[in-house]
Amino acid sequence: MTSEGTVGTLVLLRHGQSDWNEKNLFTGWVDVALSPKGEQEARRGGELLAEAGLLPDLVHTSLLRRAINTANLALDVADRGWIPVRRDWRLNERHYGALQGKDKKQTMEEYGEEQFQIWRRSYDTPPPPIDPDDPYAQTGDPRYADLGDALPRTECLADVLERLLPYWQSAVVPDLRAGHTVLVAAHGNSLRAVVKHLDGVDDATIAGLNIPTGIPLRYDLETTPDGDLRPTNPGGTYLDPDAAQDAIAAVANQGR
Amino acid sequence: MTSEGTVGTLVLLRHGQSDWNEKNLFTGWVDVALSPKGEQEARRGGELLAEAGLLPDLVHTSLLRRAINTANLALDVADRGWIPVRRDWRLNERHYGALQGKDKKQTMEEYGEEQFQIWRRSYDTPPPPIDPDDPYAQTGDPRYADLGDALPRTECLADVLERLLPYWQSAVVPDLRAGHTVLVAAHGNSLRAVVKHLDGVDDATIAGLNIPTGIPLRYDLETTPDGDLRPTNPGGTYLDPDAAQDAIAAVANQGR
Repeated sequence: MTSEGTVGTLVLLRHGQSDWNEKNLFTGWVDVALSPKGEQEARRGGELLAEAGLLPDLVHTSLLRRAINTANLALDVADRGWIPVRRDWRLNERHYGALQGKDKKQTMEEYGEEQFQIWRRSYDTPPPPIDPDDPYAQTGDPRYADLGDALPRTECLADVLERLLPYWQSAVVPDLRAGHTVLVAAHGNSLRAVVKHLDGVDDATIAGLNIPTGIPLRYDLETTPDGDLRPTNPGGTYLDPDAAQDAIAAVANQGR
Repeated sequence: MTSEGTVGTLVLLRHGQSDWNEKNLFTGWVDVALSPKGEQEARRGGELLAEAGLLPDLVHTSLLRRAINTANLALDVADRGWIPVRRDWRLNERHYGALQGKDKKQTMEEYGEEQFQIWRRSYDTPPPPIDPDDPYAQTGDPRYADLGDALPRTECLADVLERLLPYWQSAVVPDLRAGHTVLVAAHGNSLRAVVKHLDGVDDATIAGLNIPTGIPLRYDLETTPDGDLRPTNPGGTYLDPDAAQDAIAAVANQGR
């Protein structure tokens, strides 16, 4: 292992619109499908990869179909559907606890905007835990059978970072150190956790950081003298910077 | 390892119609897409898996997008898109040599029906090798970079069996012996090679054996006293036997 120098390239891709984004429901670990618009966003992501000549050597996804199918569609368009695939629950979206399946507007009216925003954006306050018998809990889902009692019932972003990092270190980092171009197709909050880790974003700032859907975010990495990976382009580089700027501005304006 | 007893379940799935089936061109290793009809066949295959409760624990595919996307679509419908994925060139379709990209009807007129049928159906006579500079050769295709000079330039079915068996023994059999339900999403000739091996079909008979597209073919397996795997249901069991029968009859009638 070299102690310094450029290693592989990381590409983050957040899945596009799902059926529940459209319906304005909290999703979390509920395994909803991409909407037709979300599928189109995924294909556009693949076009951007191909246009940039940024061709993944392998892909990591969560266990949720909106990320899996985003990867499938984007890679097919980029002519890289044949690359090795790794999947892990540790790349899943944040578990939204008892809010999963609930209408966002109704939740805000019921609990008030302050509580609503804490649940949405607080770094370390999770929503109330979901009842294991709730139809939107993942109790008995075979894809999580190995987790047993460790199956999350709610998560804040700090929890996501904590459960993501072991997979990051043991599975993604070795692929990067091997010099590969590594695509990670995942979710708003699991990718935010990656960015927080890579860029060293503080707990307060990460709440306001939004990663646009369907636009690949490229990180070029190097090994630091003490053996960690760090970006040579802090904050990363969007493959379509104008569209990313517009999307970030649109999210920032939502609250106004 | 037990010397006898039931092991895992094998499910073979042949991809459906591709853009070139429609156009009546020889395909082989050319990486053409599924047609809309082929995508529909893949989804129907997933419905059949779900209806039968035959849920794959992992999937093996070739490196060709028509098999990869068949697996992706079928597994998504069966709610198993999250299972581990393995891919290998050894599951690819037979390499059709210099015929790749050629019109089937023109080829028959040019070379005569006898020669045409030998190339299509002979067990051990391959078509002429493709020129490495031919646009339909796979020279320089990154997915085959590791093959070097072993990149096929033409294959007969005997060649397919020979290159498939090392992957079968080293990658698929261990998954079956571990008790898993294993989906193999591949092609007419690579699946015919699997069937020949499993059922001990002789060289003459295999030429007349057709596996319908999009209908999962289930093999229940046991370990023989000398440690091999053999089907407890020789010939396998189609999940939609009526549709399979119709498809096989349609192929048999094509030549009349």
